[in-house]
Amino acid sequence: MIELSLVGIGTGNPDHLTRQGITALNAADLVLIPRKGESKAELADLRHAICAAVITNPATQVVPFDMPLRDSADPDYAAAVHRWHDAIAQVWQGCISTHLPAGGRLALLVWGDPSLYDSTLRIADRLALRLDLHVTVVPGITALQALTAAHAIPLNEINAPVTITTGRRLREQGWPPNADTVAVMLDGSCAFSQLDPTGIAIWWGAYLGMPEQLLLRGPLATVSDQILHQRAAARAAHGWIMDTYLLRRAT
Amino acid sequence: MIELSLVGIGTGNPDHLTRQGITALNAADLVLIPRKGESKAELADLRHAICAAVITNPATQVVPFDMPLRDSADPDYAAAVHRWHDAIAQVWQGCISTHLPAGGRLALLVWGDPSLYDSTLRIADRLALRLDLHVTVVPGITALQALTAAHAIPLNEINAPVTITTGRRLREQGWPPNADTVAVMLDGSCAFSQLDPTGIAIWWGAYLGMPEQLLLRGPLATVSDQILHQRAAARAAHGWIMDTYLLRRAT
Repeated sequence: MIELSLVGIGTGNPDHLTRQGITALNAADLVLIPRKGESKAELADLRHAICAAVITNPATQVVPFDMPLRDSADPDYAAAVHRWHDAIAQVWQGCISTHLPAGGRLALLVWGDPSLYDSTLRIADRLALRLDLHVTVVPGITALQALTAAHAIPLNEINAPVTITTGRRLREQGWPPNADTVAVMLDGSCAFSQLDPTGIAIWWGAYLGMPEQLLLRGPLATVSDQILHQRAAARAAHGWIMDTYLLRRAT
Repeated sequence: MIELSLVGIGTGNPDHLTRQGITALNAADLVLIPRKGESKAELADLRHAICAAVITNPATQVVPFDMPLRDSADPDYAAAVHRWHDAIAQVWQGCISTHLPAGGRLALLVWGDPSLYDSTLRIADRLALRLDLHVTVVPGITALQALTAAHAIPLNEINAPVTITTGRRLREQGWPPNADTVAVMLDGSCAFSQLDPTGIAIWWGAYLGMPEQLLLRGPLATVSDQILHQRAAARAAHGWIMDTYLLRRAT
């Protein structure tokens, strides 16, 4: 029996961890940390730094594993994602066989919150088909909350709805119908720059809550190019970037 | 000069507090706790319990104040909300004059996260017109995150958008156009029960993350009445209820 705890860790600042998250990590026999190659080594280092900052239980093992890659060349996005999730579940199973052969408590650190544009719950469902698994979720601070906190703005207008979507979706389908406030996540290619900027304001942030934090805000027509340049430069410097943004259309 | 820290505290469980939130509360000279009358005394008690659980600085004063009421009879909802926010800013100013006459650090505990369907940032904007104020926001776990964590489900489908809206909006305008996943907050009158339930599933939760937590899930047609009954009984027993839910339409 494996007790799997999916711990939302926020956006990179160990101070984003909740008391519940810290308790869950210290209760774990094993914490697995994905490695995604040299260019993203800083991201794995960040997870190790978070573990070092909050895990005080000497019995908790923190073990890295090599993360399978998604086939980004596959034109069938959904199929490629499903195969990738299967491959990750298989790697997790291998780690469990090696490090928890008699069962025990496994914790995984999830950027942001496990509920929002994250695959970990779906991969855990696959793992549950292979072994006796009980999953608990510890909520964490999402990038959207870190963004609105950094800008000190509300996400919603009074009594108004908010649409949360992905960069891919915004790029392929344009501005969501009937939406005035749109929060965008998982945008690797700056979909905002392809919108007609008329009447749209943007609040953008990267490395949210961390010393490297970048923030830009203003009319999309004015700041779009600035964001493109700052984002490219920061990504080149760090080898990775995690950013998100809020768009609001004047009503 | 007042340094105002708006601290997201999650949904009532002190373990929802982040390290950043705990630091901000302990750095405060004054923490103000709203009282909303006898029937909601449990809610004020809960804020006091959270302070007692995490504030270790003996210099931090925790002071209750009487919260003005919103005129719920006013048919102009927006105007009533604006007047209410003005009244609250005025009460805050009075508390500051009394307890921080020379300035200092004030912290306010915000249910969930200050960005999401909460008035505190807007009231702070009004206070900034009356005195020298610097606002920082500490993100917290929202009821939606506590809901999806308790049900161990993702908020979104893969690469799909999510609409967050209010009970009032759902009741007045029906199912949001083009949405398949709808998260509903601030619903005092069970707007889900007025929808055509065909093809809609609901994940509902109240007192999320607390010992009293209630969870129900299933086809809306099947569980809608159960939620209505459990909600009414729990509200009568506690004098208050905080609940939220996710609706997903089969696609």
